[in-house]
Amino acid sequence: MVKVKNTTILDAYRGNKTDYTPAWFMRQAGRSQPEYRALKEKYSLFEITHQPELCAYVTRLPVENYGVDAAILYKDIMTPLPAIGVDVEIKSGIGPVIEKPIQTIQDVEKLGEINPSSDVPYVLDTIRLLTEEQLDVPLIGFSGAPFTLASYMIEGGPSKNYTKTKALMYREPKTWFALMDKLASMIIRYVEAQIKAGASAIQIFDSWVGALNVEDYRYFIKPVMTDIFSALKKYDVPLITFGVGASHLLLEWNDLPVDVIGLDWRTSVEEARSLGVTKTLQGNLDPAILLSDWETIEKRTKAILDQGMNTEGYVFNLGHGVTPDIKPETLKRLTDLIHNYSQQK
Amino acid sequence: MVKVKNTTILDAYRGNKTDYTPAWFMRQAGRSQPEYRALKEKYSLFEITHQPELCAYVTRLPVENYGVDAAILYKDIMTPLPAIGVDVEIKSGIGPVIEKPIQTIQDVEKLGEINPSSDVPYVLDTIRLLTEEQLDVPLIGFSGAPFTLASYMIEGGPSKNYTKTKALMYREPKTWFALMDKLASMIIRYVEAQIKAGASAIQIFDSWVGALNVEDYRYFIKPVMTDIFSALKKYDVPLITFGVGASHLLLEWNDLPVDVIGLDWRTSVEEARSLGVTKTLQGNLDPAILLSDWETIEKRTKAILDQGMNTEGYVFNLGHGVTPDIKPETLKRLTDLIHNYSQQK
Repeated sequence: MVKVKNTTILDAYRGNKTDYTPAWFMRQAGRSQPEYRALKEKYSLFEITHQPELCAYVTRLPVENYGVDAAILYKDIMTPLPAIGVDVEIKSGIGPVIEKPIQTIQDVEKLGEINPSSDVPYVLDTIRLLTEEQLDVPLIGFSGAPFTLASYMIEGGPSKNYTKTKALMYREPKTWFALMDKLASMIIRYVEAQIKAGASAIQIFDSWVGALNVEDYRYFIKPVMTDIFSALKKYDVPLITFGVGASHLLLEWNDLPVDVIGLDWRTSVEEARSLGVTKTLQGNLDPAILLSDWETIEKRTKAILDQGMNTEGYVFNLGHGVTPDIKPETLKRLTDLIHNYSQQK
Repeated sequence: MVKVKNTTILDAYRGNKTDYTPAWFMRQAGRSQPEYRALKEKYSLFEITHQPELCAYVTRLPVENYGVDAAILYKDIMTPLPAIGVDVEIKSGIGPVIEKPIQTIQDVEKLGEINPSSDVPYVLDTIRLLTEEQLDVPLIGFSGAPFTLASYMIEGGPSKNYTKTKALMYREPKTWFALMDKLASMIIRYVEAQIKAGASAIQIFDSWVGALNVEDYRYFIKPVMTDIFSALKKYDVPLITFGVGASHLLLEWNDLPVDVIGLDWRTSVEEARSLGVTKTLQGNLDPAILLSDWETIEKRTKAILDQGMNTEGYVFNLGHGVTPDIKPETLKRLTDLIHNYSQQK
């Protein structure tokens, strides 16, 4: 039984006014935390994510240390891929590396189905532990989106231009759509299991989809995103979509059956609203600003809050993930600033 | 004395209607050409760029082989940096690497002035050789823009998030603006020398500036870009600005004293026009499409031409550089298609 006490962020996600502006930070759990780095001296990444006690500890640290209004599960977007037959290795300094990239329709047809309770039981156990016993704020579950996952699966690792991914998409649309279907099925099952285990909101990270233009997004991506969000809509949890460098796709996202659009730092809340975006907005302080002096951080944060906090449906976040060089003290001070400033007004 | 016979592209850059749509392709010279790869077996990159005969040969190959309407000098955007005291090494598979990145105001103050005729005589000799003797289409000269050059100088190499660059910009605006001034001075001198040697148009590559939001672009970048283009305005050559992932900055670019805006593939010609962009447009086929089948390439190219070719001031290009895996036959066929299709209509 989920025992969330503070549901402010869920209210904001649903488009309601809240007493103060709730906040969390993408990548709030992980390498920016000294407690995490200490843990990494004893345990591997694999050991941390596969042991619910350890993973729950890392996940709830930012809630305890900074006072953010939600936890987000500590895990990689690659987590579900081995279950469908994709061997992923997270290489330090590189990122996810896939030895046998997807190249043909046969490669796609070989991909299996995920059975979350047997394939990723540790993920679900971590969620239960957190939501049934440890947290008093909502836990956000998540998954990578089809384009972003496919880009790793086709390129074999991180990419700058996604040339192989796009080449397959343009040259073999049947293979592409077959891959999208397989990934949609995996994502839906994986996210459903997270919701049933206790996740109170879901963010779908389509981190790299901004590499596509509007026309290609509409044709190659929008249908599968619509399928995924439609399937998840029956659960009573807010659904969030997010990607970086996707200012040109905001109106396409606004058409999706989602509750919330996550903005990177390139488009402001006001600009998004004036473009015609009607969903709840989440964002969007450039994490690089958190490496600046406090005066600058405060000024920039207030400027963002001034745009978002008096509107219905707004949640503070960064425009991209916390980088390892950002200090915990800064994130604590930032959280306090957001809460205090938005409460006063 | 420059002896250009076919000035169609210059007419289009100046906003005039032309008999057909002129075209060139970013990175048309280099690794996608078998003749270049053969040359690289005998000579190093340094030897090619420093020997005017070799460099001119590589530069004019796409004009001869594909029939494009302009040549663009074969060189790296890092070329002028050693002249002001920045040691750059181009590492295969990585890109430009700078051993001692810029960190302090002292590092910036140490940067010198470029004297193109003694520092990069081979660049000017190559331009003279091409424009006085070899080419019958215009030669486009170019330079990197301050943000893009600064990002390599501060990060020490290519970067994904430009965290150090932004951190310096936010934390030490005085150091930042001092660096912008130094780079502006270098860029103006370097480009002036290219124009005097025979370049008929200038493209300033601000490849990575799309990493900034609108507000930061206005404050930290627009003044220096205005200075550079204003200083170059007195020469009678079209000035082009270009960057990738910068859809959100198009209206800022439209304010600059430039003649042409280069679009990456994310924003179409029609979308740019409906946003209010009034300058000549250049672009914007996604180079990844050139790895597809001819039917797709033809359809996509015609769709772009249908938007651009009957407007005043339009030049076809790709939305980013030619990648090494794109076949020369494809670029030849593409050039023919652009010329024939736009001539018929």
